[in-house]
Amino acid sequence: MRYSIGVDIGATKILAGIVRQDGYVVERLRRSTPATDGELVVAAVVDVVKHLLESSRKQALPIDGIGVGTAGQIDFVRGRVLSGTPNIRNWENIELGAKLGSQFGVPVWVDNDVNVHLLAEVTLGAAQASENVVMLAFGTGVGGAVLVDGRILHGAWGGAAELGHTTVNFRGPMCNCGSRGCLELYGSGTGIAARMSERLTASGRSVSEVSSHEVFAKAVEGDSLARATIDEMVEAISFACVSLIHTFNPGMVILGGGVVANRRWVVDDVSTRVRKLGMKSLVQSVAFETPTFGPEAGLVGAALQVFINEQATGGNLS
Amino acid sequence: MRYSIGVDIGATKILAGIVRQDGYVVERLRRSTPATDGELVVAAVVDVVKHLLESSRKQALPIDGIGVGTAGQIDFVRGRVLSGTPNIRNWENIELGAKLGSQFGVPVWVDNDVNVHLLAEVTLGAAQASENVVMLAFGTGVGGAVLVDGRILHGAWGGAAELGHTTVNFRGPMCNCGSRGCLELYGSGTGIAARMSERLTASGRSVSEVSSHEVFAKAVEGDSLARATIDEMVEAISFACVSLIHTFNPGMVILGGGVVANRRWVVDDVSTRVRKLGMKSLVQSVAFETPTFGPEAGLVGAALQVFINEQATGGNLS
Repeated sequence: MRYSIGVDIGATKILAGIVRQDGYVVERLRRSTPATDGELVVAAVVDVVKHLLESSRKQALPIDGIGVGTAGQIDFVRGRVLSGTPNIRNWENIELGAKLGSQFGVPVWVDNDVNVHLLAEVTLGAAQASENVVMLAFGTGVGGAVLVDGRILHGAWGGAAELGHTTVNFRGPMCNCGSRGCLELYGSGTGIAARMSERLTASGRSVSEVSSHEVFAKAVEGDSLARATIDEMVEAISFACVSLIHTFNPGMVILGGGVVANRRWVVDDVSTRVRKLGMKSLVQSVAFETPTFGPEAGLVGAALQVFINEQATGGNLS
Repeated sequence: MRYSIGVDIGATKILAGIVRQDGYVVERLRRSTPATDGELVVAAVVDVVKHLLESSRKQALPIDGIGVGTAGQIDFVRGRVLSGTPNIRNWENIELGAKLGSQFGVPVWVDNDVNVHLLAEVTLGAAQASENVVMLAFGTGVGGAVLVDGRILHGAWGGAAELGHTTVNFRGPMCNCGSRGCLELYGSGTGIAARMSERLTASGRSVSEVSSHEVFAKAVEGDSLARATIDEMVEAISFACVSLIHTFNPGMVILGGGVVANRRWVVDDVSTRVRKLGMKSLVQSVAFETPTFGPEAGLVGAALQVFINEQATGGNLS
């Protein structure tokens, strides 16, 4: 059996571990993310990896390399964090791959968190044996990842699959990304709350802070504005899925993330709508799935990069 | 030098030729498409290929295979026309690759017309040395093709890159494809005419037949409805380009087709707008180009498949 070290860098915590090639997590470590500065995050990652390498030596487990997954835009060709989550200060333009590589002398792979999650699903989860897969993760934002002919879509330098920032309505609201009517504005937790606030304001009802959770709860209670907001969310996701199916001709679409988790009806509703929209030849045979992996998707997927990417062309630090 | 036979099957004409590996067309044949039945089209293609093979023998030119490009959805894995242009009756579910292969005993490759056009641009035209390219062709409809890591994006069976049928406004008009607010409804010749007709009807002006050409001409004359229609077209294309750049992280976007041909300002205008929208890291470095190839793009691209695809995994008749 082969082993690697996986590191999942999130806005609130760093989750790292020794991972066996079959996905079993031999040992795990958890740190809170020092969100005040990107360099502190690098130091924390170095520290965590050092501990895990020592532990692997004691257990006589050979480590083939280090895989990192983190939110934001990753220059996959150079293993560099271009721009990460705004929740970590100065988490940008960081040569993470080069730093870890020179420090530890093993191959290092750095990629986007959704990309490594999809890698886990493809290798050991919901999408095993699938060659063409689209994945959307609905959380605070909307992340995306795509498998094309068995390989993660990276594009020219690794910035591909920003699927949350594809326009579903070019007459829609402005997005932080600079564009307009992005899927994220309708399908993310933040987006659902914002659309509900707009409706409350327009209807003259007093607007206090509203969360996507509350919108879902009010919709169940029969609140018409909440229902309209959730319906708009499902519609926007459905049309985005049709566009993505027309674009990638995938065999499977995976819908995950906090907004969808424990709401299987969202996936079923989207799946039903998609089959009524778009080109029959393309939409009819697509399987809609939820992710197999839970909170350790990032850790395991990050680690799996070491075994999967080594034989691929391109990639970090090659 | 190596040679192949290229066949471009269009709604009105079949253009075929003996093509050298460097793109030079040694000999060409042109037939009008027998649009009354798909089987007649197959017979015409067989006839044209037979003539070209005979001619190649006389000239002692060895032919490595046959490449076909045609409008519509192609099952690339099986070399089958799934559903073609509505202008040719019964041009669907035709085992074109198998028929030509068994008839002539050489490798045959069948693909979508925009895919083979992009192949020509990548091999010998505007996109040489590019590994990640998005191409849009604005004609009667809107076609698309994508190059991912140096390979044409086909998806599970070859239906990928239906980029004209990605939604830019899910509150927009219904599309023939079954979806709503597709790029084709704003960016195709037919779409421009339809949007103009809507505006004329809404303003109470009498509506006679209007063509996209007339809309462009009236916009130049200062007609406000025509201007609004063209502006909406440019906006829709711009937002679609941003979405595609966020999706594929390409180094180049090629905009072609009759609507754009001889209107370089459309490409420049889209390029300027795109750079103001979307994520800087992704949109800023993208080159916007027009195609190098003209009317023989389909013929040459179809023929080039023979030299390019033979070593690729998958594909027709392998």
